[in-house]
Formats: sequence, structure tokens, C-alpha cells
Amino acid sequence: MTAILPQAVESLLRVFGKLPGVGRRTAMRYVLHLIREGDACVAELARCLDDVARQVTLCPSCQGLSTDGRECHICLDPQRGPESVCIVAGIADLLAIEATGLYQGRYFVLHRLLSPLKGVGPASLGLGRLFERAQQGSVEELVLATPLTAEGETTATYVSRTVAHLPVRVTRLAAGVPVGGSIEYLDRLTLSRAFEDRKEL
Amino acid sequence: MTAILPQAVESLLRVFGKLPGVGRRTAMRYVLHLIREGDACVAELARCLDDVARQVTLCPSCQGLSTDGRECHICLDPQRGPESVCIVAGIADLLAIEATGLYQGRYFVLHRLLSPLKGVGPASLGLGRLFERAQQGSVEELVLATPLTAEGETTATYVSRTVAHLPVRVTRLAAGVPVGGSIEYLDRLTLSRAFEDRKEL
Repeated sequence: MTAILPQAVESLLRVFGKLPGVGRRTAMRYVLHLIREGDACVAELARCLDDVARQVTLCPSCQGLSTDGRECHICLDPQRGPESVCIVAGIADLLAIEATGLYQGRYFVLHRLLSPLKGVGPASLGLGRLFERAQQGSVEELVLATPLTAEGETTATYVSRTVAHLPVRVTRLAAGVPVGGSIEYLDRLTLSRAFEDRKEL
Repeated sequence: MTAILPQAVESLLRVFGKLPGVGRRTAMRYVLHLIREGDACVAELARCLDDVARQVTLCPSCQGLSTDGRECHICLDPQRGPESVCIVAGIADLLAIEATGLYQGRYFVLHRLLSPLKGVGPASLGLGRLFERAQQGSVEELVLATPLTAEGETTATYVSRTVAHLPVRVTRLAAGVPVGGSIEYLDRLTLSRAFEDRKEL
């Protein structure tokens, strides 16, 4: 196949193929689409990528996405106090919580979860500055919104133990039956949690 | 949502979202993956896109992919004579046929199919030069490998009628039961074609 396509196309295929869930077939669809749409379309994508590479940085306060080394929109928002910090594993989780419109505090994005097997220790989470803020008394509640997986639970436990001696309220997202989900097909662990955490009506 | 993400990220999301089958969710996965991987990864994709925009052109002989206005690898291959030309709707179809390793002739890529409804007339197929070559006697066989859809069949009919007065053999890919496919779930039209075109054993 290599000889059929121009080298530039092969390179683009290879790089597209590194995106999550993109195999050679999908990469080919993208490349052919871009070539069909013409140079302007390809150049636009290249320019957008350049902008991201040059401008996007992690917010020094929350490790969320920001630009040019500044604090992000959420951390700069005067309506969102520093008292409540929701700890999430990634930007996608932050966006999902923002989409509910329920939470008015700030975030802290870990970008990874504790995993001794993968060599991810506490130091690589970048939580130092958040713990400092907690120690200085500017944090009242830490909402642990890491996933309910082994790594997510380990990370949540680590955070709650680290701040246990501080006057900080530590909460964890409720586990249970998803809204609209059937009981019948729910996995055993979730169902057990839903049972244990059942609420008085 | 717009206020949460940096403008550069929003722009990249929008441009990724134009790729076939990519919604906002998938675009977000791509963007977050690229940001996680770091600037080098983003820059590499940008560079590959630039290369494609600057270098890739359509082959003047077959409308396949080539570079810098030159003829493509297949048209330049001395082992592939100009006597047999396989007409395909797109590059992906060309690649699929190449992958069989069966065909040793050249191709002609239409990039579109005749469609009066979409305003695609014979002139936009770019077949003029191929018909000229046929008229000059350098083409012995035209293999019509357009899809077996209304547009593909219309296009095939158009080509075969246009060269009907020339001493050119015009063939069409066989229609029938896909290898490994069940008879039970085959659509009625394909099954009818397979029946009509049944072969003596």
C-alpha cells in the first residue's frame, strides 16, 4: 500500500491513527475528506492545531485548560469562590459536571489517577498547591468526583486521608442506580452501593 | 460551555467536528488527547497537514492522489500498461481494489458520481481526457467499478454509452452474494442479481 499513496498522505494517516479510537480506516476517511474539501480546509485545521500548541497551557491554580500561562476562566470567575474545590480526573469530567449547571465552585484537574502498577504516585498528581491552600484555610469543601474505579477510589482515599487533619469537609459523589437505568441489568457492585446508601423518603 | 474552554480549543473542536462521523464528543476526545500528549504531538499533526496541503495534488492522468502536479505512482509504473483503466468513484475504492492485488492496470478516479439531483453532470467527472485516450486507441478495456447504487449505475451506463462507438471493451464488476455472506439476510436486489448472473459450474 505504501507505494500507492503520496508520502505526505501516509504521514498524515499515521498521525491521525494515533488519535484515540482511530484506526487506519477512519484515518483514511479523515484524510480523504480533507483532500476532497481542499487546501483551505486542511490549512484551517493546521492553523487551529498551531494555535492550540502555542496558546493552550494548564491553569496554574486548577490544572484545567487555559491560555498563555494565565489562570482559567473558572478560576478567574469572581462568582466562583475558592471555598469549594471539585477534584476530577480529567477535563472531560469537568465539562460533564459543568453541563449539569449545578456546581458553582472551582475545580482541580488531576489528569491521571493514582496507580502503583502504572507508576503514578501522589507526587505526579500536582496536588501540592491545593493541599497548601487547604492548610491556609481557604478551602472549605473538597468534592471528590474521581470515577468509581479502583484507581479513582484509591485517589479519593488518598486525598481524604491527606486532608483528614484539616478542617476541610470532604465529600464524594453519590454512587447508585443511574437515572433511567434498569435495576435488572445493573452490575452487582453498583446495586450493592445503591442499597447501602439508600435514602429515607 | 463556550466560556469554560480556551478559544483555541473551541476552534479546534469546531474544525475536528467537520470530519466525517465526528461529533462534539469525539472531537473533544481528540483535542484532549492531543493536549495530554503535549505540544510536539499537536505540532506533528499540524506539520503533516501542512505537507498535505502544500504537496498533494491530483494526478493529471487519473485524478488519483499524487504530489507537486506530477503523475501518480500507479500511472508512472512501467509495469502497469495504459490499456486497462478501472473507473472508481473514489480513492478509498482504488485502495480496496489495490489491496486485492488482482488488478494490474491503471485507474481513473471520478471523485463524484453522476447525480442530476445534486447537480453533478458529465462535465464535472473530468472524463474528457480519458475519452480522448480511448479515441486515440490507447485504451483496450474500461473496467467500471462504480458502486451498485443508482448513481453508480447511472455513471457506469453513461461511460459505456459514451465509448460505445469505440473499439473498447467495457466491463462491470460482477454483482452477487458477498463471500462469507448469508443468503438469508441478503437484500432482494442483490439476490436477484446473483440469481440472474448465476454461473455454469
